[in-house]
Amino acid sequence: MKQSEMLVPTLRETPAEAELKSHQLLVRAGFIRQTASGVYSFLPLGKRVLRKVEEIVREEMNRAGAHEMLMPAMQPAELWMESGRWNTFGPELVRLNDRHQREFALGATHEEVITSIIRDEVKSYKKLPLMLYQIQTKFRDEKRPRFGLLRGREFIMKDAYSFHDSFESLDGSYQKMFDAYNRIFERCHLNFRAVIADSGAMGGKDTHEFMVLSDVGEDTIAYSDTSSYAANIEMAPVITSYQKPEEALQPIEKVATPNQKTMKDVAEYLHHALDKGLKALMFKVDDQLVLVVTRGDHEVNDIKLKNIYKASTVELATEEETKSAIGAGFGSLGPIGAPDTVDVLADNAVKNMVNTTCGANEDGYHFVNVNPERDFKVKAYHDLRFITEGDVSPDGHGMIQFAKGIEVGHVFKLGRFYAEKMNASYLDDQGKANTMIMGCYGIGVSRTLAAVVEQYHDDNGITWPQNIAPFQIHLLTLNVKKEEQVSLSEQIHQILEDAGIEVLYDDRKERAGVKFADSDLIGIPYRISVGKRADEGYVEFKERKSGQQEEVHVSHLLDRVTKALAL
Amino acid sequence: MKQSEMLVPTLRETPAEAELKSHQLLVRAGFIRQTASGVYSFLPLGKRVLRKVEEIVREEMNRAGAHEMLMPAMQPAELWMESGRWNTFGPELVRLNDRHQREFALGATHEEVITSIIRDEVKSYKKLPLMLYQIQTKFRDEKRPRFGLLRGREFIMKDAYSFHDSFESLDGSYQKMFDAYNRIFERCHLNFRAVIADSGAMGGKDTHEFMVLSDVGEDTIAYSDTSSYAANIEMAPVITSYQKPEEALQPIEKVATPNQKTMKDVAEYLHHALDKGLKALMFKVDDQLVLVVTRGDHEVNDIKLKNIYKASTVELATEEETKSAIGAGFGSLGPIGAPDTVDVLADNAVKNMVNTTCGANEDGYHFVNVNPERDFKVKAYHDLRFITEGDVSPDGHGMIQFAKGIEVGHVFKLGRFYAEKMNASYLDDQGKANTMIMGCYGIGVSRTLAAVVEQYHDDNGITWPQNIAPFQIHLLTLNVKKEEQVSLSEQIHQILEDAGIEVLYDDRKERAGVKFADSDLIGIPYRISVGKRADEGYVEFKERKSGQQEEVHVSHLLDRVTKALAL
Repeated sequence: MKQSEMLVPTLRETPAEAELKSHQLLVRAGFIRQTASGVYSFLPLGKRVLRKVEEIVREEMNRAGAHEMLMPAMQPAELWMESGRWNTFGPELVRLNDRHQREFALGATHEEVITSIIRDEVKSYKKLPLMLYQIQTKFRDEKRPRFGLLRGREFIMKDAYSFHDSFESLDGSYQKMFDAYNRIFERCHLNFRAVIADSGAMGGKDTHEFMVLSDVGEDTIAYSDTSSYAANIEMAPVITSYQKPEEALQPIEKVATPNQKTMKDVAEYLHHALDKGLKALMFKVDDQLVLVVTRGDHEVNDIKLKNIYKASTVELATEEETKSAIGAGFGSLGPIGAPDTVDVLADNAVKNMVNTTCGANEDGYHFVNVNPERDFKVKAYHDLRFITEGDVSPDGHGMIQFAKGIEVGHVFKLGRFYAEKMNASYLDDQGKANTMIMGCYGIGVSRTLAAVVEQYHDDNGITWPQNIAPFQIHLLTLNVKKEEQVSLSEQIHQILEDAGIEVLYDDRKERAGVKFADSDLIGIPYRISVGKRADEGYVEFKERKSGQQEEVHVSHLLDRVTKALAL
Repeated sequence: MKQSEMLVPTLRETPAEAELKSHQLLVRAGFIRQTASGVYSFLPLGKRVLRKVEEIVREEMNRAGAHEMLMPAMQPAELWMESGRWNTFGPELVRLNDRHQREFALGATHEEVITSIIRDEVKSYKKLPLMLYQIQTKFRDEKRPRFGLLRGREFIMKDAYSFHDSFESLDGSYQKMFDAYNRIFERCHLNFRAVIADSGAMGGKDTHEFMVLSDVGEDTIAYSDTSSYAANIEMAPVITSYQKPEEALQPIEKVATPNQKTMKDVAEYLHHALDKGLKALMFKVDDQLVLVVTRGDHEVNDIKLKNIYKASTVELATEEETKSAIGAGFGSLGPIGAPDTVDVLADNAVKNMVNTTCGANEDGYHFVNVNPERDFKVKAYHDLRFITEGDVSPDGHGMIQFAKGIEVGHVFKLGRFYAEKMNASYLDDQGKANTMIMGCYGIGVSRTLAAVVEQYHDDNGITWPQNIAPFQIHLLTLNVKKEEQVSLSEQIHQILEDAGIEVLYDDRKERAGVKFADSDLIGIPYRISVGKRADEGYVEFKERKSGQQEEVHVSHLLDRVTKALAL
């Protein structure tokens, strides 16, 4: 492919609005252009990569037994009203009226459309399970679109939906999808983790997010340094066991801690480490006041608290509520002498603490040498805190480390949420009507492309993995005024294209320096430069990522390329 | 592919709202479902065909030297205001506001977006020409969406755009696209014509529509019965030459024709054929009154009239305007004695008429034995009528016939229309700024799929051409309770899939009659039925289109299939 005939507008300058490397490089290297805030055009290079990623997704979906279909972007509001999402989705849902003033949503996802099709067409357990997917444009009117393709308003998604007559059947499809997702992101050469995630308000069961590890990610992942365990930090249980220090119990003592409000203040004032003290926070769990006691250096995980009470809402009590319940404000709370109206719960780490410190429930005072059981009772010990780096991995293998992640995929056991609201039922083998059970499975295809760039770049540009690079070989004629360089380049171009190798041939009337810089920016895995030794038949062959280069004679070039590409 | 695991919902009944065969059959055979009026979901069978058509389009676009890209559906209103189409496109343009109340159009076509990209990125003649295309979803809010995929509100289009520094360069790209379109529709096995079309208000030069011949088409095509000439009827010039009858001129005579208003009335009243009389119609061409005289059986083509005057508007004069100009109403108009304020033009056919009849410009009277030149003068003779069946083809080869057509493609020399409005200019080799020259080229991809069905069906269902059929072989187990049928079917399924043949395997627990009917409906080119002679290894092999069938032993089956598919 001749670069002179292709639209590859490279830029020397970094676009002002682009914060992230993937955004900067995809614009600078001529892969994308912004058409409106959060809305991008894929130029030819970008479209080539997009198609390669799509093809990987398609192959693995087909292999998992899912069938491709294509649903529309324009969706009648009535369907979204049935599911309730017309009201709950909020301003991220793009809405419009047609010429007859009928309301439509532009598909943000397609649960409503697919459920309406399946409820109309599938009436018997004999036709279940079904797995369907599409690769299609989605619309979400983000409040602050940014980060280029990582958070756009119009983007390409693969979404799949499965329908079942039992949870066992759903489990089977979920596992197939889970495996397919692992294969997809492996084939994209991404460093990623399948992360246990929060099933949230959907009433679903299991859910995993596929996170590409990246410092620019917006989610924090807790993962094991030796096993495959990974979870969103709020989802990770703490199984660390605590040793009781071999230390004689000292008599409890009340001390003045004037104006010491925070854990850190108190610890410094009393000259002990943060993890020597107790932290106590007052929560309102539905209508119940709960005093949660943790070690001073730990953070309360309110999702765990919510799950213990099976509550609808959990929030911090106000200072006034706290004062009227226990007689002291935030700075001096503690478990000793808490009234019966307040449940006192403590994190498992508290049980084995010795001679610790806690608030005296009297403003400006703390107790020191406090010992659990001897000095206070709790209603129960639970896992109540966020996991931290250094904790034992919840699967028992290795230690927890933290990383930031970019969510590129999501698999979700929806259960009966949509099927119930939209009356999707089937007759079982007894002729009895039952509500269908569903799963849904998404991949941000254009986002995956950007995530690859986040992991594959250096100071000079992108370093594409070979199988999703826009081309495999970048062929450069360093001086198009030299006849021998042009004719050797043409010859090489022909040889490589005849061998089925994708070649971008830079035949432009540009200086060698410009061509080298553009080539590094675009990031095709291997570069062939036809320069001064063209008359002898020698060219330079260079690997983009490692920078390794060698001179190769044209007679050996196809062999060298084939070997490099491992074809 | 097991049919039991796929969503293929066939219907026995014809959907009430479906008027056309393509619409009826695509719904009944489980290829599509309507999600909203004019908005369809492609089910797995439909998506398979769509992908095959898309792939043909993609291959031929690439071969023509166009580069694939992908532009967004959401387009800022500002771009459409620049081109002026925000106002001129009317209610067919789907419009919406984002959460910040900024206005957007959903892409009906992409001239504005591509022109904005090219004007920003291409500044020099060195980077021209460029040809870019995309295969993407388009939105047009049709007033009356109908005919299934033939006129929807959301549909798949291939649109291409070319940019040039000269009209010669545009001509070259136009020809490449024209050739590619011919190859595309040939590869879809369509009976079609490339039709000369009206370049309309866009100020463009050449334009061709690609029309699939079909009685359900909404356009009328005039085509030669021997050459490749074809045009929209309003575009076809008439080159027929007329012989003057060997008949003595009779004296002119005025006769009463009371209450005879139409040409047909007058001809019957005076006992002569329709083509013996003269028809005269009064037009307003901009502000000029023009009396157009044609043979009684011919129809005035007002586009030709408009072109003669290079006028902006052409309309019929009102009866009042006519009366005040010439003294008579519609029923008795004629060229004799027309005042100087009225231009009298006659069609070429009139020149050689002898002893004809015309209105006397006096209500209730006609002249008979009227002879041109002797009895009246005209300002000029022109080609002023619509071509008719039996006329000489305008290219001089063969005779004209009429056909109805479905427009599936359009190639158009846009010229500078968009580039001028949107300031897309380049510097030429003298460093001088020039406005770019553009072409645009569209194919209705989903419409093409429907057009294939209009041409490939019989009373029992669809008869897909092999290369775009959803599968190549339909394998039916006639009785799944018979172990030998099931095991032979499984064996055949494996053999064929291993050979890379696309097989839809009907393993459902349905009666043989249901399977046969569904198979005919779906229309896969070849059917293998595993039935009673399964224990001997014999199956039935049947061609869908011809109905020809034969018994084949499993040991010869792959050979037979390979031969049939000409692999």
